[in-house]
Amino acid sequence: MSTTNLEQYAVDMARAAREAGRRLAVTSGQQRTDALKAIAAGLREQTERLVAENAHDLAAAKDNGLTSAMIDRLRLDKAAVEKMARSVEEVAAQTDPVGQVIEGWVRPNGLRIEKRRVPIGVVAIIYEARPNVTSDAAALCLKSGNACILRGGKESFHSNLAIGQVISESIEKAGLPAASVQIVNTTDRGLVPILLKQEDSIDLVIPRGGESLIRAVVQESRIPVIKHYTGNCHVYVDEGCPAELAESVVLNAKTQRPGVCNAAESLLFHAEAASRLLVPVCRKLQAAGVEIRGCDRTRQLLADAKPATEDDWSREYLDLIISVKVVDSLEAAVEHINRYGSHHTDAILTHDVRAADAFVAGVDSGNVMVNCSTRFSDGGEYGLGAEIGISTDKLHARGPMGAADLTTYKWVVTGYGQLRR
Amino acid sequence: MSTTNLEQYAVDMARAAREAGRRLAVTSGQQRTDALKAIAAGLREQTERLVAENAHDLAAAKDNGLTSAMIDRLRLDKAAVEKMARSVEEVAAQTDPVGQVIEGWVRPNGLRIEKRRVPIGVVAIIYEARPNVTSDAAALCLKSGNACILRGGKESFHSNLAIGQVISESIEKAGLPAASVQIVNTTDRGLVPILLKQEDSIDLVIPRGGESLIRAVVQESRIPVIKHYTGNCHVYVDEGCPAELAESVVLNAKTQRPGVCNAAESLLFHAEAASRLLVPVCRKLQAAGVEIRGCDRTRQLLADAKPATEDDWSREYLDLIISVKVVDSLEAAVEHINRYGSHHTDAILTHDVRAADAFVAGVDSGNVMVNCSTRFSDGGEYGLGAEIGISTDKLHARGPMGAADLTTYKWVVTGYGQLRR
Repeated sequence: MSTTNLEQYAVDMARAAREAGRRLAVTSGQQRTDALKAIAAGLREQTERLVAENAHDLAAAKDNGLTSAMIDRLRLDKAAVEKMARSVEEVAAQTDPVGQVIEGWVRPNGLRIEKRRVPIGVVAIIYEARPNVTSDAAALCLKSGNACILRGGKESFHSNLAIGQVISESIEKAGLPAASVQIVNTTDRGLVPILLKQEDSIDLVIPRGGESLIRAVVQESRIPVIKHYTGNCHVYVDEGCPAELAESVVLNAKTQRPGVCNAAESLLFHAEAASRLLVPVCRKLQAAGVEIRGCDRTRQLLADAKPATEDDWSREYLDLIISVKVVDSLEAAVEHINRYGSHHTDAILTHDVRAADAFVAGVDSGNVMVNCSTRFSDGGEYGLGAEIGISTDKLHARGPMGAADLTTYKWVVTGYGQLRR
Repeated sequence: MSTTNLEQYAVDMARAAREAGRRLAVTSGQQRTDALKAIAAGLREQTERLVAENAHDLAAAKDNGLTSAMIDRLRLDKAAVEKMARSVEEVAAQTDPVGQVIEGWVRPNGLRIEKRRVPIGVVAIIYEARPNVTSDAAALCLKSGNACILRGGKESFHSNLAIGQVISESIEKAGLPAASVQIVNTTDRGLVPILLKQEDSIDLVIPRGGESLIRAVVQESRIPVIKHYTGNCHVYVDEGCPAELAESVVLNAKTQRPGVCNAAESLLFHAEAASRLLVPVCRKLQAAGVEIRGCDRTRQLLADAKPATEDDWSREYLDLIISVKVVDSLEAAVEHINRYGSHHTDAILTHDVRAADAFVAGVDSGNVMVNCSTRFSDGGEYGLGAEIGISTDKLHARGPMGAADLTTYKWVVTGYGQLRR
């Protein structure tokens, strides 16, 4: 598209979303639930079409430089479509967040003050080449009464357009505006910067993907952004920590699924705990194939550990590698985590309640775990249902974000003719 | 300052704030309350010094182009300093928001999930030449456990520095880090853009002032911004509205204090209500000195009304002027408000519950009033205590913002060795 056409396309799409959002704001929870059920049915009915469109993306995947793990996430077969449909049904079954009265009271002059949960309006989501995110994000936005604009990775272009068409047809049949869910219909990279300037029509941008994508979005956007950076998660083994607790939780946090954002990347030992537990814990990790990169004190205890460089303390390996450091106090552990961590998820292993309290208060992270694996940092594990992502921001929503985090509130003040004196 | 020095100054200030914020995060509510009381005492003790420093600003005020209303807000005398001290004491008396458990539950696997309120960290506030905002903002930030960087209008430079010094001395005596509250020590306009790039050390920017200031901040900032735009507030008089309700509330909303953001700027009548009430309501407004700018239908009923131009529907007069329009339905009123309004505060006057519900659901504003004056849209009137401002944003905080809106939360997950399977 020419720049003028691209500009017009972005403006039109954003305005249509705003209009659809206004209409969604006055729908009932039943209408929105029915629309979600219609989407699930539509996905199942149109499985063949979705698989066929997905084949175009798969055919180009290698030329597009996708790794085999990426291709796995891109692939749609009958089972994958069924999984998408079920996920939409799970969102449909959640409690409706819209209309909830968060707080309320009556003032001495009789005014009734209510803080009432309402949709945000229009949400734009920019994500990688994962077709299931298209239906998940659409479902969470509809559940919370928001219109959305979805821009998935160009490698999933045909799949996303086909899923979008099924969604629009289904929600229109259910009586909601088709423009409630819009898929960006161009792979032109010039579109996103224009979209990020439509602050009158779009209320929130959620970028999901690599750090460079997120930084680029923050740089360009005039619309508020909730960032989903990845995680450099720590486990701190406190003075006096029992051996069994340290061995089992550290192993789980590092190795149960090393390629995800809530896997542990760095291990801190209090000096006392190091003298008892560093070797047995690290041997367990090594037995599971984990490479140890340690500080000098670590290497005095564990001669076969590689030396950790300054850079290692900030790394998110997403792999079977872990950095290990010995510290002299809980305070030193907290300082290290706040300095090198990514404020995502950090854990303490301790039986001392004062230590647990100090760690929870001192670590500036969205999720702080006491005596359990960092791998529990997840909307599903918390009981939030499907999640739109894990926010590494502090404003509006922090940590796992569910449908309720896609709402705002309005103050509703009801009186009977009160005047201000 | 040279650009290099300015850059270094901004970086140092932001880092000192981050460090102070980390220390504030682990203070008790008692320590923070004591610090606020020390500030109030300090302000009272140092009244003479504050008045003397303020005199420098007053002497330059006319040359700086301040209007007499602005000079009134800039002036510090004994009574004004006493008012500042009392306001700090009121914030001290509020409930501590930090540590509140917003939600919590236990998962089937025994994990205890808590969403716990914690300080945001570091807040930068950019505001006009009003010295009382310096102490109010510092008090609200300290109450909620945040470090802050305050940059007031250059016309209040000497006053703000003196207030800042009193605050830092007082909180240091109370055992909190002096850098918890930092006043920008230069009037160089180059500083703010540099400050707005310190996203690693500053978590939130709140600009208060004219629209152009706020737009400039949004444009420059890499840090999340909560905007405080002013208000184009509507009162909609519904079909069947009683005469007394319309006459009293409209007059109060427009004339009780016309120069503020929650005063009414536009009046909408349902056609039926217009035929009964447009003339008597407008005559009351005119008797109070209000100029009427009406649509064609208004002018057919009220011949001496001036014609409203398209531009009038978007105007925030902050003066004794009001635009008046006749609409055919509640839906048309909602559409007009969503199109021309500023999403701040809008009211419906009606005895019909269905109409009230439809208006509340349809109007996309932070504050929606039913049968009361728009002038009640205010943190104090809502019972929130002192407010940092009235957010016109939808994310994080909407409408009047109190100390609790300067907090975020962290997820605290407590277990006894649980592993993810």
